[in-house]
Amino acid sequence: MGRIRFQVSVSLDGYLAGPDQSLENPLGVGGEELHAWAIPLAAFREIQGESGGEINASSPVVAAMFDGVGAVLMGRNMFGGGHGPWPEDPPWTGWWGENPPYHMPVFVLTHHPRQPLVMEGGTTFHFVTDGLDAAIARAREAAGDRDLLIGGGASTIRQALAAGVVDEFLLSIVPLLLGSGERLLDGLPKVDLEQVRTVEAPGVTHVAYRVVR
Amino acid sequence: MGRIRFQVSVSLDGYLAGPDQSLENPLGVGGEELHAWAIPLAAFREIQGESGGEINASSPVVAAMFDGVGAVLMGRNMFGGGHGPWPEDPPWTGWWGENPPYHMPVFVLTHHPRQPLVMEGGTTFHFVTDGLDAAIARAREAAGDRDLLIGGGASTIRQALAAGVVDEFLLSIVPLLLGSGERLLDGLPKVDLEQVRTVEAPGVTHVAYRVVR
Repeated sequence: MGRIRFQVSVSLDGYLAGPDQSLENPLGVGGEELHAWAIPLAAFREIQGESGGEINASSPVVAAMFDGVGAVLMGRNMFGGGHGPWPEDPPWTGWWGENPPYHMPVFVLTHHPRQPLVMEGGTTFHFVTDGLDAAIARAREAAGDRDLLIGGGASTIRQALAAGVVDEFLLSIVPLLLGSGERLLDGLPKVDLEQVRTVEAPGVTHVAYRVVR
Repeated sequence: MGRIRFQVSVSLDGYLAGPDQSLENPLGVGGEELHAWAIPLAAFREIQGESGGEINASSPVVAAMFDGVGAVLMGRNMFGGGHGPWPEDPPWTGWWGENPPYHMPVFVLTHHPRQPLVMEGGTTFHFVTDGLDAAIARAREAAGDRDLLIGGGASTIRQALAAGVVDEFLLSIVPLLLGSGERLLDGLPKVDLEQVRTVEAPGVTHVAYRVVR
């Protein structure tokens, strides 16, 4: 069985997104700056299906994100489409256009049932309404021997950490103070961590951790 | 004029000390683990006036802490002795014994006046009751061309960051979740940061930041 892991950018004060998240501003006020280090990279543009871009010490870190991954799990807030029942006209199909960058099954944790959504390029969104454990079981089965990547957001990652199912994670620590928003590592039970490796890169420090059981 | 800087260990969830700080447990519950990476190092033992110890990638980071420093500023909570007026019998002379590891003037921010306290080895504690600006002015004057190191704790560092007087700082990010306690980077006004350098070391990642003005 593959590992369960996540890889996200956080501000130096621990936020995964700024305050006042909305459809227009899904990462909240100031949240887009969290990803400024990644946007120009060829490795990041390749995930978006684009060519060109820069290469630096962050490149292998970005390239490794989907390496060996067989399924993705994310929360409703990260998939988007507002709160409550799914809008139908037009239906919400995610933030990523017709051909999302996943190219594999993506399991969306939600309270509101919905038929699977088949996109171009191999991405299918499955909507799971019976809780985190069920979503993880289904996503692991889909991933097979490959890893399960928890895409986010903060709430889904915290639930997975609290449930003790995360094997490892990588934080890209950005020199930015957001001051408020969605904090990643709050309200968790005791989790023992081991630092695995650190990568210094322009405008960001990547640190990988293993959860010790 | 020298720089104003600080250098502290923080948990991955941003705490400088654990919950329930007390005379017996000055770093709070779990807080001592924040310094576990430093304790065995020769560079750390040397600051304590002891010999022997290990050398690893953290050694130059620890050795640089007091390098070029001409004065130290700290809060009453870090100097210790409880809250309120100073105890007289016996007087509180800090956590560090007869020969504290500073060997220079140390300015203690407090609401309670007290005569300067001359210790062995060149450390003199000066107690400043007219606020952060006055304390910084006095400490800078004492430091001359050398740096002013803000020793801590979290509240004093936050005040200095909020006042816009900090030039740079180094965080030693420890793979530990404390869950509660004294958070370093909370409730600050906007501070623009630039990542200066990152050092990967056993059990800790050191990241230096510059405050951009």
